[in-house]
Amino acid sequence: MIRLGLFLLALSATSALSAPPEPGEAPLTIVIHGGAGALERGRYTPSEEAAYKSKLSEALDTGYAVLESGGAALDAVEAAIVVMENSPLFNAGKGAVFTREGENELDASIMDGRTKAAGAVAGVTHIKNPIRLARAVMERSPHVMMIGKGAEEFAKEQGLEFVKRSYFRTEARWKAYKSAVEKEKSEKRGDKESGLPHDFKYGTVGVVALDANGDLAAGTSTGGMTLKRYGRVGDAPIIGAGTFADNNSCAVSSTGWGEYFIRLTIARDICAQVEYAGKTVAEAANNVIHERLQESGGDGGVIVLGRNGDYVMEFNSAGMFRGVRQGEVKEVAIYRD
Amino acid sequence: MIRLGLFLLALSATSALSAPPEPGEAPLTIVIHGGAGALERGRYTPSEEAAYKSKLSEALDTGYAVLESGGAALDAVEAAIVVMENSPLFNAGKGAVFTREGENELDASIMDGRTKAAGAVAGVTHIKNPIRLARAVMERSPHVMMIGKGAEEFAKEQGLEFVKRSYFRTEARWKAYKSAVEKEKSEKRGDKESGLPHDFKYGTVGVVALDANGDLAAGTSTGGMTLKRYGRVGDAPIIGAGTFADNNSCAVSSTGWGEYFIRLTIARDICAQVEYAGKTVAEAANNVIHERLQESGGDGGVIVLGRNGDYVMEFNSAGMFRGVRQGEVKEVAIYRD
Repeated sequence: MIRLGLFLLALSATSALSAPPEPGEAPLTIVIHGGAGALERGRYTPSEEAAYKSKLSEALDTGYAVLESGGAALDAVEAAIVVMENSPLFNAGKGAVFTREGENELDASIMDGRTKAAGAVAGVTHIKNPIRLARAVMERSPHVMMIGKGAEEFAKEQGLEFVKRSYFRTEARWKAYKSAVEKEKSEKRGDKESGLPHDFKYGTVGVVALDANGDLAAGTSTGGMTLKRYGRVGDAPIIGAGTFADNNSCAVSSTGWGEYFIRLTIARDICAQVEYAGKTVAEAANNVIHERLQESGGDGGVIVLGRNGDYVMEFNSAGMFRGVRQGEVKEVAIYRD
Repeated sequence: MIRLGLFLLALSATSALSAPPEPGEAPLTIVIHGGAGALERGRYTPSEEAAYKSKLSEALDTGYAVLESGGAALDAVEAAIVVMENSPLFNAGKGAVFTREGENELDASIMDGRTKAAGAVAGVTHIKNPIRLARAVMERSPHVMMIGKGAEEFAKEQGLEFVKRSYFRTEARWKAYKSAVEKEKSEKRGDKESGLPHDFKYGTVGVVALDANGDLAAGTSTGGMTLKRYGRVGDAPIIGAGTFADNNSCAVSSTGWGEYFIRLTIARDICAQVEYAGKTVAEAANNVIHERLQESGGDGGVIVLGRNGDYVMEFNSAGMFRGVRQGEVKEVAIYRD
């Protein structure tokens, strides 16, 4: 039955304007990223690579298990992101990078493609799993976005898990912060606001999923940018920039230089090209990443998933931690092929 | 010369896909709003109506004078918004409404259609003119969005004007807050988060402009929603929801129930329909406000301005404070015609 569905999809996948698949016709799919950046081959030792791939694989399997048991795309997205938030390897949750002041500020957002409900938090500092708080904002408040202490007061009422700020202080990130501070000093910039240190702008984890009901969902979580200013918010918690999901077009999670992703409304633009210009998710992602983002001077990547199960992992940086599971297909990768 | 330009535009305005006008061909235009809401005819006394119309007129003239003197659309947008922020009549700057805790939290954003640069601030509490801070973030920081105390630290460095929180305590808004609190108590809601008091979700000011160079810009500023939770952020500071500008499509500022405007990425969606579906600004705004927003259960309005000078002020609420100036045309209005 699923095989037949796949075959029919292959016939119809050439046009985004073809009729949407019936629930269950499109293959269960989960696509994840763990950040894009200057990931040239050889940057990591074989054992580091193995650790990243193992955690990506665990996140994929965790999310896919939700889908296989008939769970919602939204639940799969949350479950897979929590795995990455709880790992020190990614710039989200536990592994968040440090701000200019040597603190951690976390942002996250989630969106349900079926209802177009959305939730987002920015600038939280004591929440173990910001993606769970974003979902609580979506489902248990009348709001979409909450920030800072107000978001944490809401988290307390909702019984979310709090951690001390020291929880986020991993040795690797602290070293990276110290070395970034030193690098900046040694360059003796006249105006410290004139630029951002290269390579400190990456990170972020994200997931898109398609469930047995044919519903899409997307979510994104980040610790932001190393040395970011106190109070800076990137694209991760911005609906339409870092995260977007709509059953009528596609689901997207972004990672990269957030400022460019906000200006270009990257996630919404990809889905708008699918919705209005009749592009496939691959064509839309290609245009937005390799033309619009590239021409603007920004970099990063996206994962995109269409309602028919078409997916793409596209980036204009050297590499992107990424993975997909769709039926028999399972892949994880770091560098460009 | 301008007459000829208008004539040519009238010929070409039927399709958004026609060639863009040369600089100076399209008429200098400024369109403003001062919030949409339950503005049934008769809600205000004649003298109150006159006060609103007079201030809308002043904002229009202030912005238009910038355009006439050859100034940038961006400068016109800022100047007109500052007039409304400094008035107690609108829910932005001086006239900001109160949060659930009886405080004022202000949000704003601005975007340059020529460069697609953007700036936004959320949750600031001591900045006299949040739109100026949004512009400073755009032009003098490497970031697009800053929130809370971090945004205010940046404002201090940049020499923006600070005010005491008491500056925002206008008698009319305080009374509205007190009455909202009483109303909520008397309704003895079991779950105070289950809904939002009707009619407390409006406000916001916004401006879109087209300058002699053919450049578009948009800006939005708000005091948020009466009784909003501490830390709630609406659509006003979200690029793609409350504000969007791109010379390739259009400029938009939104006002209304912000949660719906974020989920639907209202501002970006209108410009995406112009860009990808070949719609006029009127057709795109009509679809987004009277179909998508209406069907989702949200309400509010938008002002939209195309690169050829086509403009529209569209809302599905009872009324919207609004105005336009384009050459000889000057109109201000509150209620539905």
